[in-house]
Amino acid sequence: MNYKVVLYALGGLLRLLGLFMIIPLGVAYYYGESLTPFLVSIFITSLTGFLLLSFKTRDEWMRKEGFAIVALGWLAAAIFGAIPFIMDGISPLNALFESMSGFTTTGSSILTDIESHPKSILFWRGLIMWIGGMGIIVLFIAILPKLGVAGRQLFRAESPGPTEDKLKPRVKDTARILWMVYFVISLAMVIALMLAGVSLYDALNHTFTTMACGGFSNYALSIGAFRSPLVEYIITLFTFIAGANFALHYRAIYIDKNFLLKDEEFRFYTAIVLSASGLLTFLLWRDMGTGLLDSFRLAIFQVVTIITSTGFSSTDFNLWSEPAKMVLLVVMFIGACAGSTGGGIKVVRILILLKHSRAELFKALHPRAVKSIKFNNKPVPDEVVSSIVSFTVIYLLVFLTSALILSLLGSDIITSITASIATLGNIGPGLGEVVGPMGSFDPIPPPGKLVLIANMWIGRLEVYTVISLLTPEFWKK
Amino acid sequence: MNYKVVLYALGGLLRLLGLFMIIPLGVAYYYGESLTPFLVSIFITSLTGFLLLSFKTRDEWMRKEGFAIVALGWLAAAIFGAIPFIMDGISPLNALFESMSGFTTTGSSILTDIESHPKSILFWRGLIMWIGGMGIIVLFIAILPKLGVAGRQLFRAESPGPTEDKLKPRVKDTARILWMVYFVISLAMVIALMLAGVSLYDALNHTFTTMACGGFSNYALSIGAFRSPLVEYIITLFTFIAGANFALHYRAIYIDKNFLLKDEEFRFYTAIVLSASGLLTFLLWRDMGTGLLDSFRLAIFQVVTIITSTGFSSTDFNLWSEPAKMVLLVVMFIGACAGSTGGGIKVVRILILLKHSRAELFKALHPRAVKSIKFNNKPVPDEVVSSIVSFTVIYLLVFLTSALILSLLGSDIITSITASIATLGNIGPGLGEVVGPMGSFDPIPPPGKLVLIANMWIGRLEVYTVISLLTPEFWKK
Repeated sequence: MNYKVVLYALGGLLRLLGLFMIIPLGVAYYYGESLTPFLVSIFITSLTGFLLLSFKTRDEWMRKEGFAIVALGWLAAAIFGAIPFIMDGISPLNALFESMSGFTTTGSSILTDIESHPKSILFWRGLIMWIGGMGIIVLFIAILPKLGVAGRQLFRAESPGPTEDKLKPRVKDTARILWMVYFVISLAMVIALMLAGVSLYDALNHTFTTMACGGFSNYALSIGAFRSPLVEYIITLFTFIAGANFALHYRAIYIDKNFLLKDEEFRFYTAIVLSASGLLTFLLWRDMGTGLLDSFRLAIFQVVTIITSTGFSSTDFNLWSEPAKMVLLVVMFIGACAGSTGGGIKVVRILILLKHSRAELFKALHPRAVKSIKFNNKPVPDEVVSSIVSFTVIYLLVFLTSALILSLLGSDIITSITASIATLGNIGPGLGEVVGPMGSFDPIPPPGKLVLIANMWIGRLEVYTVISLLTPEFWKK
Repeated sequence: MNYKVVLYALGGLLRLLGLFMIIPLGVAYYYGESLTPFLVSIFITSLTGFLLLSFKTRDEWMRKEGFAIVALGWLAAAIFGAIPFIMDGISPLNALFESMSGFTTTGSSILTDIESHPKSILFWRGLIMWIGGMGIIVLFIAILPKLGVAGRQLFRAESPGPTEDKLKPRVKDTARILWMVYFVISLAMVIALMLAGVSLYDALNHTFTTMACGGFSNYALSIGAFRSPLVEYIITLFTFIAGANFALHYRAIYIDKNFLLKDEEFRFYTAIVLSASGLLTFLLWRDMGTGLLDSFRLAIFQVVTIITSTGFSSTDFNLWSEPAKMVLLVVMFIGACAGSTGGGIKVVRILILLKHSRAELFKALHPRAVKSIKFNNKPVPDEVVSSIVSFTVIYLLVFLTSALILSLLGSDIITSITASIATLGNIGPGLGEVVGPMGSFDPIPPPGKLVLIANMWIGRLEVYTVISLLTPEFWKK
């Protein structure tokens, strides 16, 4: 392991983060709030960044250094991103939880009285989500002068889901395109929200957290605070878009809009969303006596926000009937599309595992038949299935370990299970009174919070990157 | 599909089942109970058997017929095995539930007042479990004159878990050996229980249901009724044995006792049992204030009975603390060893998936390294991993579908989830008030019962056999 290379790269990242902190400083100035939190944060973050940059080196990095840069880069962002929250009077552990939840676009919150915090702090809380959504490393690659082959590896280690990401031969160009598409769609969303009567501040904040599939809101009632079906539908639409592959959006916007409809993952994702929403509409109508149209609005909003791992709420779904909650629990495990800003296991993985199982079932009947599985009309190599399997196994293992530890620390089964999956899948709220949509993660005991912080980190980087750092092989020479 | 071949084989099976019904007839005679239920059952079952045997044919069967014989054979056994319960006044659906639960060694029960039923009926309830434990088809193969290659396929379709089953070159001899080992260990258990002061009737009944990893008891309090730590330890020991591979027991008894200790699956199984029991002992001591020795006894009993999918209870574990229940929920998913009488996903599958994931993690760091995974010092072919994956995926899919349907029918989330896994894994009791160890599955609505009956059937035949019957490919010419 070449430590110098890693520290140098982390220095670059922190310097970038320090620059980003100037934006909420401006917000604080505009609203006449104290400038101290951000001045201190900028100072500490930039200073550390510049100190680390003194490890300047021309060494090339290898695979291991790449993993370390991505994993530790996210950890460093969460730690330094927590400083404004600490300055706001939040305890360091809670601040780290909130910051990690932000960057990883999880959206679980330890705040109990959200609206009591300064606007600039809540703005920062939304902004880190937006940055984390498309990815700190992708941004880093887009901005950094030259990275070459090593850049592609960093890119892969951060990007969500197995996806063909070669939009352009140069990874730097791909990263720029993705950020540009992200920016353009975000801009469209801000405008749509403002046309629906939302203030600029609220529109920015909710765009940040919608486009990132994050789910923080600056209101305790989340989207319910707007009391506007139109706003709900706008957020549903953009959440749905953010849960699909951004490379696909680029192609659909700039090349041919049929790209979206021809993509198997997008079609399956749409099918799941529609059928789950249909079922949920029926259940809300049957069990809760809600009118059909309202049921549909609540249902599609909640299904989209949960499957994309955004985790907003327009109502307290913890009060819904048990079968309705069961539907949400199931879609929670599925997750969004690869290459989106969403979390979870991802639709493409589920789809390939299902196709694989179907092919095996066929083979059981016709042992000599050779049947390879296809995705988007291309054969899926065995290694892809193989790595999806190990991803899923490690994912479930982390999930089980986390649920077990939370439960040992005193949480009930539903809280332990749903808090684990909500953080690992970067979803946000779970079920039950504590971690439900109207609850807060604050009552979870400190060691439990550390586990959940680790879950968010592991989940955002899709298990491998962080877990590989924990293997003895990683540290062997 | 050659229907004649299938019907002919089913005829042979039913004739065999009719013969077995003579045993509870003897029990009824001994205790002076009504002989009618069994006389009627013997008549109907044997008559149907003989009628089907008129389809006598010399045709060879192929793979599809083999699948159909095994799947429909189990269904037929459950249907005809239900007749004594119907004659006892139980509703047909409940009778089928109880019979399927018996044959598949699930141990979920719809009876609400167990002890009010005749001894002969409860004896039959235990006996079908014992038959189902080692397998109806294995018995059929052991007894039937000649089957050749087709026999091995039947054998595979029924046998639990991926296991090397070639104890002898001829499948008939393997089947006989397995039944013999099963019989010998069962005999040892009857003697052990009687030495501990249990009556012959109770000893037989509990041996039937322990050795089959089934879990029916003729007492409402299950093993708690004996109020004897010694009996609990005896049952724990034999349940543990029944949860291991019987081919291994054969080798350990007749060839070299080191075979058990050298087997990787057995070692992992032992390690899981010991560590889960240790954790549970601690939790019962910490949360419930139980003395350490009592905690250990309760803990190891419950872990063994749940992991092997037996599902006895010595106490109402539904009253245990949430983390204690969480431990049980986790081991529920693991299951027993391949080639045992137990259910669940099976230890070997979990072990191979873990090894595979570890190898993939290694590959992520060293992309050019070739690292094949080994089990018992032999390389594991890719096809094994591949079929374990599809098994697990289909298993989880059936589980989710079932949990969702139960929940739609009005069960709460914990009941829906644990009832589904308890029946699919052939475990028996779930968690929650309805399906917990002191509850009964009777309150589940009729369509829910049908789903659970299907789960037991699908689970006992390890998913493929039944599910393949549901694919259009199966019925294509």
